[in-house]
Amino acid sequence: MKDKIKIGLIGLGTVGSGVYKTLRSFDNIEIVKIAVRDKNKKRDIENLDESIITDNPYEVVNDPEIQIVAELIGGINPAFDLIKTAVKNGKHIVTANKELLAKHGEELFNVAEANNKVVLYEAAIAGGIPLIMPVKTILAGNKITKIKAILNGTTNYILTKMDMQGSSYDEVLKEAQELGYAESDPTSDVEGFDAAYKITTLATIAFHKRIKFENVYREGITKIRPEDMKAANEMGYKIKLIASAELNENGQADVRVHPMLIRKTQTLAHIDYVTNAVTLSGHPVGDVTLSGPGAGEFPTASSVVGDILAIVSEIGNTDYLLPMMRCRHEENAKSIEISDTENKYYLSMTARNSIGVIGRIGKACEDNNISLASIVQKEVEKDNSARITVITEICKEKDMQNVVNIFKNDPAIISVNSLIRVQL
Amino acid sequence: MKDKIKIGLIGLGTVGSGVYKTLRSFDNIEIVKIAVRDKNKKRDIENLDESIITDNPYEVVNDPEIQIVAELIGGINPAFDLIKTAVKNGKHIVTANKELLAKHGEELFNVAEANNKVVLYEAAIAGGIPLIMPVKTILAGNKITKIKAILNGTTNYILTKMDMQGSSYDEVLKEAQELGYAESDPTSDVEGFDAAYKITTLATIAFHKRIKFENVYREGITKIRPEDMKAANEMGYKIKLIASAELNENGQADVRVHPMLIRKTQTLAHIDYVTNAVTLSGHPVGDVTLSGPGAGEFPTASSVVGDILAIVSEIGNTDYLLPMMRCRHEENAKSIEISDTENKYYLSMTARNSIGVIGRIGKACEDNNISLASIVQKEVEKDNSARITVITEICKEKDMQNVVNIFKNDPAIISVNSLIRVQL
Repeated sequence: MKDKIKIGLIGLGTVGSGVYKTLRSFDNIEIVKIAVRDKNKKRDIENLDESIITDNPYEVVNDPEIQIVAELIGGINPAFDLIKTAVKNGKHIVTANKELLAKHGEELFNVAEANNKVVLYEAAIAGGIPLIMPVKTILAGNKITKIKAILNGTTNYILTKMDMQGSSYDEVLKEAQELGYAESDPTSDVEGFDAAYKITTLATIAFHKRIKFENVYREGITKIRPEDMKAANEMGYKIKLIASAELNENGQADVRVHPMLIRKTQTLAHIDYVTNAVTLSGHPVGDVTLSGPGAGEFPTASSVVGDILAIVSEIGNTDYLLPMMRCRHEENAKSIEISDTENKYYLSMTARNSIGVIGRIGKACEDNNISLASIVQKEVEKDNSARITVITEICKEKDMQNVVNIFKNDPAIISVNSLIRVQL
Repeated sequence: MKDKIKIGLIGLGTVGSGVYKTLRSFDNIEIVKIAVRDKNKKRDIENLDESIITDNPYEVVNDPEIQIVAELIGGINPAFDLIKTAVKNGKHIVTANKELLAKHGEELFNVAEANNKVVLYEAAIAGGIPLIMPVKTILAGNKITKIKAILNGTTNYILTKMDMQGSSYDEVLKEAQELGYAESDPTSDVEGFDAAYKITTLATIAFHKRIKFENVYREGITKIRPEDMKAANEMGYKIKLIASAELNENGQADVRVHPMLIRKTQTLAHIDYVTNAVTLSGHPVGDVTLSGPGAGEFPTASSVVGDILAIVSEIGNTDYLLPMMRCRHEENAKSIEISDTENKYYLSMTARNSIGVIGRIGKACEDNNISLASIVQKEVEKDNSARITVITEICKEKDMQNVVNIFKNDPAIISVNSLIRVQL
């Protein structure tokens, strides 16, 4: 067996914990050191190996054994110096630090390049959504010229709630703070800084041109009124905090974060609560929209771990050809026969408008362990027949097929028109 | 300069043309041979180099100079033998052949593995949507256990039209055939074969277990009636042809393609016409949804070219560390000041209910080159004021700010409440 790849974590907060828990199941990876601010803090992690915990992050970046450092503390200081030191010490970096990337990305990547190391940061933008890696790899043949995105969960939660409840910004902010969806000082989210950090880096990658954070226009959501929400709705729009970037034909970039009326026919209008979404437009691909959880312990860990595995797949193999690209099929899947599955059903029938049909339908279902969620009978005037629509609760396909056969043989049922499964 | 990577194409139909046109702009890549069925066919490609066209595909797979073969003809024969021959001759493969992958994937990947070559196939599933590469790379830390997807554009187009027009399946199919959205023999699409091929391979990759195509349950859309559409709508659902795969805790796979009622609150319910979408559920990421064009010359080319570039980035570099992962910022972007941008605006004001206000608003806009798309005045009863809501046509931010300043100084305008940009 090859040696395990040695990882050091800086930070064991929400994201760090998710990363630690997720990485433990990989037997080709070993977490050898974790830097925390407070060694005595009680943590919700089973079997945490206390012996690898330090409160000096330089012990991580200076440890000669460590090959990859995951920086998960955020902010400029001391994160920036820690990362630079780690890179100079020959370590690859995975980070979720959107502010550092937006403000000092250029220096950061120059140091990495000079030391032949990579800095990956899928988790810094749109949490668990696969975004940076796809832009750099499978979409690499495209010229991307437009990005429209919802990149901040807190503000999207507030706007969604304002829209649904008709409440004011202040009311909903208070609610969001009580639920932990907004910080006690919400400035970074509600004034659009967080989204501006993210669109700065995303546009830099997508356009292959460095966007300066100070050139990003920024407006927050604090002035949006319930009256605006209502007026927008009446005109067929939703109000969202949109991070947008456009590259025009002269190579000029127009990068901004501000509230925007989005037509209800657009996907972004339906991205609600803390979900994030990004629509990328380019040639040849056209428009693709990627959506999912933009923050949180586990979604963010998914991206950090994905970046770590990408580096591991390269440095862990002398046989280096696209190790992650290979088709792994450890075994054939055992499969389930459709007759053994459980589903909900929509059933449409036409019946003679005679006494007792509904009763027999109910009885047949009951005899076959099928509960009905709803049954609607509508008269069809011209021929005295009735249209019966049934929605079942979850039941066995086998039982449902039995019942359908019973109905097909019931002289009062003229036809079984449709049997369609319903999403659970 | 390093040698160019030599590519051979098999097929120059819709997808092949898109690939050819897209690859031409990459100066580290050279297309050295293209196999077509009919050399005399007129093709809509500018400056096509006729000297590299052959009607014998074995000239491509046997050409010792070619390093990557893109197979874009589809079907089992002769595609399967061509790919096997190419792999044995030391070539990497990029293919869009969903049927071949679904039916003979196991043998195909075994041959590739034995010859230390890769077979990539992003374009085979969901066209231009980044899907296979993200599942294999940035989502690699996840245990994916559920997939729900719309993978066939033809059937989604038909169902969308049936829903909107209330027309029958037969009517809409005919329309779709006339528009070129459905084949003259539509069986593969409307009976769910196409979607079943795709979900077979997608589930195999996502679950790390080989799914057998013959175990995939399949039902098409030919029996869906306008009445079902209507009933579903009334109950809060849309009917979609869903390709689904679930891996239960016993490792059993439940993979199927059939029509399904999807709640209108779900993203998949709003994926209309030929758009495709895939929702992947796993731990730690949660649910992510990827949507975009599922077919077409250019979207499909995006995926084929993405796969080609992934291979090029590995075989073209001796310095092999994650070449696609590096941060490229060729230059700083020139940026546009927000005052120089053009936008549509929503403007909300409160005014005294006095004569001439609307006229002055109109005049000020006209004087500043701003056309109004709509203006609504609503009386506010209690204090004799009026709420005025304006939506402009596209105009300059500078002009809009001028007008807002004019309004702020108009004695009849009590307050300018909101200025929010509107999606174009």
